[in-house]
Amino acid sequence: MAKSKPAAGSVSRRIKERDTRTLRGIVELADDVAKKALGGKEPRVEIPLRTRSNTIWNRKRGILEMGSATAERELFNLNQAKQFMQTCLHARGIKELIEVEKSLSLRGMFYKGLHTVAGTSEKTFTDQDESDGILEDLEVSLGALREELHIFAKKKGTMIGNITIIDSGDEIDCRRMGSGGYAIPSIVEPDVIQFKKCEARFVLHVEKDTVWGRFNEDRFWQEHNCILTEGGGQPSRGVRRLLQRLNSELGLPIYCLLDCDPWGHYIFSVIKQGSISLAFESNRLAIPEAKFIGVRSKDYKACGFTDDVQIKLNDNDIKRAKEIAAYPWFEHHKGWQREIQGLLDNGFKMEVEAMINKGISFVTEEYVPARLKAKDWLE
Amino acid sequence: MAKSKPAAGSVSRRIKERDTRTLRGIVELADDVAKKALGGKEPRVEIPLRTRSNTIWNRKRGILEMGSATAERELFNLNQAKQFMQTCLHARGIKELIEVEKSLSLRGMFYKGLHTVAGTSEKTFTDQDESDGILEDLEVSLGALREELHIFAKKKGTMIGNITIIDSGDEIDCRRMGSGGYAIPSIVEPDVIQFKKCEARFVLHVEKDTVWGRFNEDRFWQEHNCILTEGGGQPSRGVRRLLQRLNSELGLPIYCLLDCDPWGHYIFSVIKQGSISLAFESNRLAIPEAKFIGVRSKDYKACGFTDDVQIKLNDNDIKRAKEIAAYPWFEHHKGWQREIQGLLDNGFKMEVEAMINKGISFVTEEYVPARLKAKDWLE
Repeated sequence: MAKSKPAAGSVSRRIKERDTRTLRGIVELADDVAKKALGGKEPRVEIPLRTRSNTIWNRKRGILEMGSATAERELFNLNQAKQFMQTCLHARGIKELIEVEKSLSLRGMFYKGLHTVAGTSEKTFTDQDESDGILEDLEVSLGALREELHIFAKKKGTMIGNITIIDSGDEIDCRRMGSGGYAIPSIVEPDVIQFKKCEARFVLHVEKDTVWGRFNEDRFWQEHNCILTEGGGQPSRGVRRLLQRLNSELGLPIYCLLDCDPWGHYIFSVIKQGSISLAFESNRLAIPEAKFIGVRSKDYKACGFTDDVQIKLNDNDIKRAKEIAAYPWFEHHKGWQREIQGLLDNGFKMEVEAMINKGISFVTEEYVPARLKAKDWLE
Repeated sequence: MAKSKPAAGSVSRRIKERDTRTLRGIVELADDVAKKALGGKEPRVEIPLRTRSNTIWNRKRGILEMGSATAERELFNLNQAKQFMQTCLHARGIKELIEVEKSLSLRGMFYKGLHTVAGTSEKTFTDQDESDGILEDLEVSLGALREELHIFAKKKGTMIGNITIIDSGDEIDCRRMGSGGYAIPSIVEPDVIQFKKCEARFVLHVEKDTVWGRFNEDRFWQEHNCILTEGGGQPSRGVRRLLQRLNSELGLPIYCLLDCDPWGHYIFSVIKQGSISLAFESNRLAIPEAKFIGVRSKDYKACGFTDDVQIKLNDNDIKRAKEIAAYPWFEHHKGWQREIQGLLDNGFKMEVEAMINKGISFVTEEYVPARLKAKDWLE
């Protein structure tokens, strides 16, 4: 978050530099509009396109990227005037946030921008979705992360393990966080969170907090010298960015323990390559080195589970599995083709929780340690 | 959680006593079944009824309580045999958890109990709902909280502020938890979490984590010497129990800042009086002293909001508002009758986030401090 307790000199300098850069971008955007208007030209802003067709798969880097296509928003175009106005409105709101050193939630930004347009009975925004979209437009136009625009989202996910971090000037020892853990905030940029001391050799990321609870109770992170994170399902931007920073800045491998189903595969795909809707942020969010450590379709036989672990695939699961198999980054990957085919051949999904089938701590004491030792994962 | 790092002597003794008590209850349940069977009587278990009709409003104590009605489950009754078997199965599973000093999620318990009944093609449970219901039955039969049965649920909510707690032997200073905060675990019983040092004078509980973020960024808890919690919407049992303990053990008033809508009123009602489905736990969950500090229907005029804060009531909202007005604990409360009528007269809801209408930090710097100073709340 932007403001909190006085940060160390270098950090506060870094915040200032970042904010100055963002402010400059907003002022340039506004200046450009004003210049065009005064010069007798039509006021317009150019917004990079966040569509599937403008998303490029960068095979070499292993991430999704945004292409160069843009759309124009013109003030004197009946179809675009409202969006033009909304863009300027939110740009002004963000400028104010930066100036007063505060941040707001997406919902808060919606309310901040909401008013009746003078001389009409029309509201500036119909709903929050409209507002959220404009904020994403501004992110890409200004080349600044949402976090740099002082906007935060719903917080999700927790962390525990052999690392000490500084969050807003507070030193947090993640080795001593009890059964609850450290709640990962929405904004985890380097000016808010710094890594102080880390002995951990890797990160184990699990999908659900109940699985995380099992691993924490068994003190897995202590025994295997790692960091344990969970994302409460599909991980938020904050969780993805934190994992990406742990990987890129500290060189820690990221092992993902997810369900053996299309949803688990999709979560992994987003962690690893990024997503279409946030392709413009893949640079800071995607982790091409991330590894899928399980659950694998072969495990049903390999681990000797009973049929109690089976959840039958429905039509939608089968459709999703085939779509995911055709993703460019899975399409030519033999291991993933075999895995998804294995899922379809099985005809059933398997959840991480189902491993209880082999004992309460089978997953923490046998499954994951054995996979790590054998380096048996999918990249 | 049950097992973690070695706890201090007195705590580990307390865990042992609690577990011994729970184990004794399970053994008695099983002995009773065996005795009946050996004595030529029909094996049966008696389960207290968790229905609306068996829920009693204790006006004097200000909480919902469970009545004395029970239902019997007989082995040789075709309609009850499956539930009888499920009850015994989960009782055995819990006994095992306690003996190995581990805990499981509700989903984990479902998988633990799931198998094909010998000699049939029938599964022990159809789905997790069935399993969850049996676990609640066991809670009431054994007079033990789910937490005492070593079962945890999805974790929700965070805490920050002027308190130091011990969680599973780890000392956690909630004054130094950065922007993320301490994630409140599912099990917060005294043998897991102890309060060590607390200067806070009260607790401010908000509904959403984004509102919590606003208060934390403005360091509200520092300025007003309090604890700040959020429940991620309808608070979990863990969050409610923690608030109840902060109230009953440390004597801290609990102020709730919730939306001005039937959902906000319902959340408050559950925090204060308990809920029908968990009436048997009201003793440890309900906080009759809790106070509703806002948002109030009068605020629209009193605070001078523009109509941008209005979200029109729909038919379902109106129906719910009338139902809540008829709750026995609101029915004779003039303040609440006026409040709900005010909501209906307004014809619109208002969210806490909408207060941005009067400025980014209006809610933290003006609204809540003014209400606290004027003691302007609903009990």
